[in-house]
Amino acid sequence: MERISAEEALNIVLDKVRAKQTSQNIQLNEALGRVCACTVYAPIDNPPFDRSPLDGYALRSVDTSGASPEKPVWLRVTGTIYAGDACTKRLEHGTALGIMTGAMFPPGCDCMVMQENVRIEDGGTEILITGPVGAYENYVRAGEDIRKGQLLVEAGERLSFAHLAILAAMGFEDVSVKRLPVLGLFCTGDELAATGSPLPPGKIYNSNETLIGQRMRELGFVPKILPASGDDAGMVAAKIDAVIEEMDGLITTGAVSVGEKDIFHDVFKILGVQKLFWRLNSKPGGAILCGIYRGRPLFCLSGNPFAALTGFELIVKPAIGKIASRGDLAIRKQRVKMAGGLAAKPVRRFIRARIENGAAKFPAEHLSGQIFSITGCNCLLDIPAGAALDSGGEVEALLF
Amino acid sequence: MERISAEEALNIVLDKVRAKQTSQNIQLNEALGRVCACTVYAPIDNPPFDRSPLDGYALRSVDTSGASPEKPVWLRVTGTIYAGDACTKRLEHGTALGIMTGAMFPPGCDCMVMQENVRIEDGGTEILITGPVGAYENYVRAGEDIRKGQLLVEAGERLSFAHLAILAAMGFEDVSVKRLPVLGLFCTGDELAATGSPLPPGKIYNSNETLIGQRMRELGFVPKILPASGDDAGMVAAKIDAVIEEMDGLITTGAVSVGEKDIFHDVFKILGVQKLFWRLNSKPGGAILCGIYRGRPLFCLSGNPFAALTGFELIVKPAIGKIASRGDLAIRKQRVKMAGGLAAKPVRRFIRARIENGAAKFPAEHLSGQIFSITGCNCLLDIPAGAALDSGGEVEALLF
Repeated sequence: MERISAEEALNIVLDKVRAKQTSQNIQLNEALGRVCACTVYAPIDNPPFDRSPLDGYALRSVDTSGASPEKPVWLRVTGTIYAGDACTKRLEHGTALGIMTGAMFPPGCDCMVMQENVRIEDGGTEILITGPVGAYENYVRAGEDIRKGQLLVEAGERLSFAHLAILAAMGFEDVSVKRLPVLGLFCTGDELAATGSPLPPGKIYNSNETLIGQRMRELGFVPKILPASGDDAGMVAAKIDAVIEEMDGLITTGAVSVGEKDIFHDVFKILGVQKLFWRLNSKPGGAILCGIYRGRPLFCLSGNPFAALTGFELIVKPAIGKIASRGDLAIRKQRVKMAGGLAAKPVRRFIRARIENGAAKFPAEHLSGQIFSITGCNCLLDIPAGAALDSGGEVEALLF
Repeated sequence: MERISAEEALNIVLDKVRAKQTSQNIQLNEALGRVCACTVYAPIDNPPFDRSPLDGYALRSVDTSGASPEKPVWLRVTGTIYAGDACTKRLEHGTALGIMTGAMFPPGCDCMVMQENVRIEDGGTEILITGPVGAYENYVRAGEDIRKGQLLVEAGERLSFAHLAILAAMGFEDVSVKRLPVLGLFCTGDELAATGSPLPPGKIYNSNETLIGQRMRELGFVPKILPASGDDAGMVAAKIDAVIEEMDGLITTGAVSVGEKDIFHDVFKILGVQKLFWRLNSKPGGAILCGIYRGRPLFCLSGNPFAALTGFELIVKPAIGKIASRGDLAIRKQRVKMAGGLAAKPVRRFIRARIENGAAKFPAEHLSGQIFSITGCNCLLDIPAGAALDSGGEVEALLF
């Protein structure tokens, strides 16, 4: 198969994967970061009733017309309304009610005056108003924040703390969200040893499971980890066959190059996987094999950690983003200045880097087997084939 | 008590709260975003042994000196080493071993040659080398990525997917992290109704629990929710007294202004809370009361949702950041251009806004009781008292 560009490969994959359609109702306090499954409109006004923004006295504006320090208006205080009180009794002409912040305005009243702007007389049974109060002065109307029927959250939006607070203010206990895709992670290689026990000669600890698995967690997915396997095509094929129906996609690492033990070519043959592409015309992560098996995508990444991560960022992240209806996981690019130079190489490269104040710093050591210098990186620099870059030169960066 | 600036208030609080010192060992796959409790050094090299970066033949460079197309060197192939194989047998002069990517180099060998650069003869039992191969050509040395004893993660660093992958590559199964602070969230107010049931007249649904609770989750904390309470100072005091020993801090909302039902002044008296400050000289969120009770901070926020959020961002977030050893939660500021104008007001204000491409857009409606326009905001604009701002004017923004 021809080597193709990362862009062509991604288009092939995006054309084949579909957004997961099923949804579920979950409690608001479990829904942070989830994708809203349906458009939600306001079932009630917020605030739900006309209410006072301050502590003071609720009154009728007409009663105060013509009031002045010389000709003050006296109003009889008939009680106090606290926040939370139901208030159905009409306010009569010539009377006022004490009202607290957040309390419902009584019918008949159309304004309030702050405590500090009245004179309280006769032990609080009367107040003296020394100036006119306008209609709807210090008056919060029902629906001023949110009007009943108003659009609150659109289907496909990712729920933030603010969305959830709005839904709570509307009285919702739960919300319909897209189900998270079930994504498997399966690391292969005879060289892999489990962490937590001594390392036999010739073996390495399995860091890809953590590298890719924790990157997925950072993005909001909890991968289903399959125990790592050795390089046995029959066993690997049987394992994939046994679990694929529970999955919306499967990510593997290892055994996708051209060596004798690069078993995924055989695995694809054994299972009859529809191959989408094999190998990109870029490094690292060029050795990536993708296919569709029983309707599910298989993303087979390199066993070299940084190559696996590059393949993940270029192809898997946007693809699982589509499956999960997560538009924020599409490829995002930014032009950046290089904080150092790079000699030309004949192949397009993706170099790990950190953008800080618009400049991209990159480590001197960035071989595909190296993981230490991944720490702190927040992008991949896209270095075209044959390009020699001086410090200060501009390139495109793919943001993590 | 005097109204003070947000900065003075925060300093008072930061001076009183202490970083939680206890730590726990947790599995790597549960440790994403947690704060590393001790400095970790590499227990082994990575790679752990000298290994081949490619598929080909491992050999001794001295055997190839003087090789040319006219005078090729013949080497006997004595076997193949695969990734994961232990390899202790010394490579003899005049011989080569097939070697696969990631496989351990045998003792005695100091280079390898790619498969495509040799001629394979006699069914693979001999190879023909037509040029000299340099010492350590195509040779990855043990420790090239990480050297045994090297600093891996410093105490206090927040663990990213890359840190965790590095720890996995070193064979660690778990990591020591700071324990998360236990933070209570307690909403009060006679006006609060629980979501999920019809709204009685005069009541509002409790959105603060979700607003503050989900904002805390976004920052990596899972608050311990206490059931909301009415405005009864004795009951609220008893509740706080009953739970405070299980907490590292408690956040409340409601009842901190000057009204009759602003019960937290009484709660502080009943419990004998050491008052740190009451009220900021800014709006909204000016009504915030903080104290220390049995060594734990009490953060009593306004009942108005946006005022509560502002108090949370100005005071609580950096304070719980200190308790949790989360330096990333300290106040972060940025100068931004206003995308619209604002008339002067006599008081310092914090206006919700969204920074996009360096300009801060803010909603026309931003009263403290309003929550709808919090959606999408990523900062608070710090508008000085008395400042009239034109579109394009610069202000300081506190980043969420």
